[in-house]
Amino acid sequence: MRPYDIILKKRRGEELSREEITFLVDGFTRGDIPDYQMSAWCMAVFFQGMSARETRDLTIAMARSGETVDLSAIRGVKVDKHSTGGVGDKTTLVLAPLVAAAGVPVAKMSGRGLGHTGGTLDKLESIPGFRVDLSKDAFVRNVNSIGVAVVGQTAAVAPADKKLYALRDVTATVDSMPLIASSVCSKKLACGSDAIVFDVKAGSGAFMKSDEDAVALARLMVEIVEGAGRRAAAVVSDMSQPLGLAVGNALEVREAIDALRGQGPPDLIELCLTLGSLMLVLGGAASDTDRARELLGRLLENGSALAKFAEFVAAQGGDATVCERPEILPRAAHTVPVPSHASGYVSAIDAERVGVAAMILGAGRRVKDEAIDPAAGLVVEKKIGQEVAAGEPLALLHTNNAASIEEASRLVSSAYTISQSPPSPPLLVKRVFGAQR
Amino acid sequence: MRPYDIILKKRRGEELSREEITFLVDGFTRGDIPDYQMSAWCMAVFFQGMSARETRDLTIAMARSGETVDLSAIRGVKVDKHSTGGVGDKTTLVLAPLVAAAGVPVAKMSGRGLGHTGGTLDKLESIPGFRVDLSKDAFVRNVNSIGVAVVGQTAAVAPADKKLYALRDVTATVDSMPLIASSVCSKKLACGSDAIVFDVKAGSGAFMKSDEDAVALARLMVEIVEGAGRRAAAVVSDMSQPLGLAVGNALEVREAIDALRGQGPPDLIELCLTLGSLMLVLGGAASDTDRARELLGRLLENGSALAKFAEFVAAQGGDATVCERPEILPRAAHTVPVPSHASGYVSAIDAERVGVAAMILGAGRRVKDEAIDPAAGLVVEKKIGQEVAAGEPLALLHTNNAASIEEASRLVSSAYTISQSPPSPPLLVKRVFGAQR
Repeated sequence: MRPYDIILKKRRGEELSREEITFLVDGFTRGDIPDYQMSAWCMAVFFQGMSARETRDLTIAMARSGETVDLSAIRGVKVDKHSTGGVGDKTTLVLAPLVAAAGVPVAKMSGRGLGHTGGTLDKLESIPGFRVDLSKDAFVRNVNSIGVAVVGQTAAVAPADKKLYALRDVTATVDSMPLIASSVCSKKLACGSDAIVFDVKAGSGAFMKSDEDAVALARLMVEIVEGAGRRAAAVVSDMSQPLGLAVGNALEVREAIDALRGQGPPDLIELCLTLGSLMLVLGGAASDTDRARELLGRLLENGSALAKFAEFVAAQGGDATVCERPEILPRAAHTVPVPSHASGYVSAIDAERVGVAAMILGAGRRVKDEAIDPAAGLVVEKKIGQEVAAGEPLALLHTNNAASIEEASRLVSSAYTISQSPPSPPLLVKRVFGAQR
Repeated sequence: MRPYDIILKKRRGEELSREEITFLVDGFTRGDIPDYQMSAWCMAVFFQGMSARETRDLTIAMARSGETVDLSAIRGVKVDKHSTGGVGDKTTLVLAPLVAAAGVPVAKMSGRGLGHTGGTLDKLESIPGFRVDLSKDAFVRNVNSIGVAVVGQTAAVAPADKKLYALRDVTATVDSMPLIASSVCSKKLACGSDAIVFDVKAGSGAFMKSDEDAVALARLMVEIVEGAGRRAAAVVSDMSQPLGLAVGNALEVREAIDALRGQGPPDLIELCLTLGSLMLVLGGAASDTDRARELLGRLLENGSALAKFAEFVAAQGGDATVCERPEILPRAAHTVPVPSHASGYVSAIDAERVGVAAMILGAGRRVKDEAIDPAAGLVVEKKIGQEVAAGEPLALLHTNNAASIEEASRLVSSAYTISQSPPSPPLLVKRVFGAQR
């Protein structure tokens, strides 16, 4: 087998065999197949696509390229949730304790934020004392004792994907559906969960700008994971504006605590109930999503979800009093409103621009490994459909870096479209796949 | 400017500016732009193509990437000829002295054979004593004194093309029209001729299998060279069977000498007259191709062309008695006929297969820098349209390597299609572009 022939075959639009795909992934991971052949192959995939079967084989080959996490020491059906990334997406902070409170073990490996999207690890670390670098043993022990743990993904997981993603990132081959799906799913499969619920975001703040692409990606990822012998479900959810109101690490933790009390923004709560009920069904804790939803609602109301969050925070070294006194979270020196430039109705928000504004204020990273400010970010005051008067605040910026205010303010202001008639509000949950039993 | 953005722009099918193309070529030549970005870009070009303007800018950037040959010390209009490569193509051996005899200086830089196609340098070197490594001074002196010299192309010419071609060769991005055209033309422009006549081969033994592709390539190359301020013409000629009868270095020299005597195979002579008359018109030695053709015919008849060949051979250290005594050329130990498996008419010949058979017999190289046997090759006995009886020879193999005979014989035999009715013979000269004045 020669890499040249595999590139040529894909360039011609032919379907590659499992052997060919595995040969390519293994050779690339070992360093036998050079970057320049792999990037040409990626570009050929961009133009010719891959069948579902090819994509599954690619995913499995990448999942097996390094260490695979063995979660068998954890009792029960382990259900993971993966979001394709958005602005203000703090669902994991709510879902992890909520689902654990319902009896489904949550053994989650998470990532950090990059660019306009945030990361769960950064958010949790804004809680004083919180540690995400648990040992393997402590991770398993925590899940078995309290039902939930969240740690950073080990570097040894799916090295082929890491290497390939880094190459795609500099060769304009990131936005290929089969390459995106296999990248996400290879990591998830390697991390050892029994079932995965995908939250595929669609809209201005998401990687997939169109509903159509998001639906295709969701369908493909469910197909891949099921093809690999695990269970899967997916939700296509709206990202045409930030989820909830808060964008930025400590600000989002605060909002998540509100939600765990049943008092958070309605869109955040609705999405958590939708995703959570799929997780409960896949985890065997409910027979259908209606019953699951009822159970989750009760757990929010009766304080069990928030109590589980406090347990979870304490178990990872964090100050659990944050649940009662969120003011212990880091707070920014400056809070500055962004006034509306017109009167009318908010008809659209460029969520990506809002995310970039939060990044500029200190909440995110332009490049990997940059330091972030846990207190920085912004809180949206007006969402799509709301009426606003000229001069009334659209959002409140939080930052310790006064020099960033002007640029962030301009960005937020330009992210809003104000119209004279009220728009129809966006549908939050656009599509649900799977979890039928 | 970032290579990433240039790849993305091309991937989207947009036209690149001259500045972007030059940035890419210069950065790649210097080693600042890595192979993996360049190969992704080549694959994007394969799918999205390039406009004539982009292709010309790429050609010029590559032509300027290294040394450019200054032929101003040579008097007259320097006309070069370039063939895209075929089987049994010995036209340069005939044209160089023929055109020189007509008064147009031929300062030719040539290449070696690779795979199923032969190279002019290898053919000339089969003449005892012939040297192709003339110094720059000797090269200029020879052209000024006798009108013709043929040397190897210096390694310093168009390094960008060399580097890019090597990369395309291992990333399945060779067969892209703009990349092929720019590769050929960049070398030709850097080699300093005032005018270039292209012989674009079409058919089973050529790089371009279809007439359509060959016509498009011919048109594009003429456009590029004229856009770069030089004069150009092109012929699309048949390569659905070997040109002439001989395939292999010494065997082809022998056939070229016959042709210079006006006794060679009619297709070889016809193609030389077509190409030569275009060279004469571009070189200003004839006002139109009809008069040019007449003049060339006379030079073949009256012995001037052959006398010029003898002068040329002697000037480069070769034994000029080869003209009268071709038996001084190396001869193979074994000559073995390949019998026809059927009776009927030759309706098709897979010329590439015939070229590979010659290579196997020792006439060519599988990989660069391999040693070759000047005596090896084969002589075709039957061409398309000829009648053949079962058992009658289709070709005569020449080799010093008895172990190669079986495989070569099988290849030649399988290259022939014998049908029961006579086919219409292929048109030798399919299209002529340019040289109107």
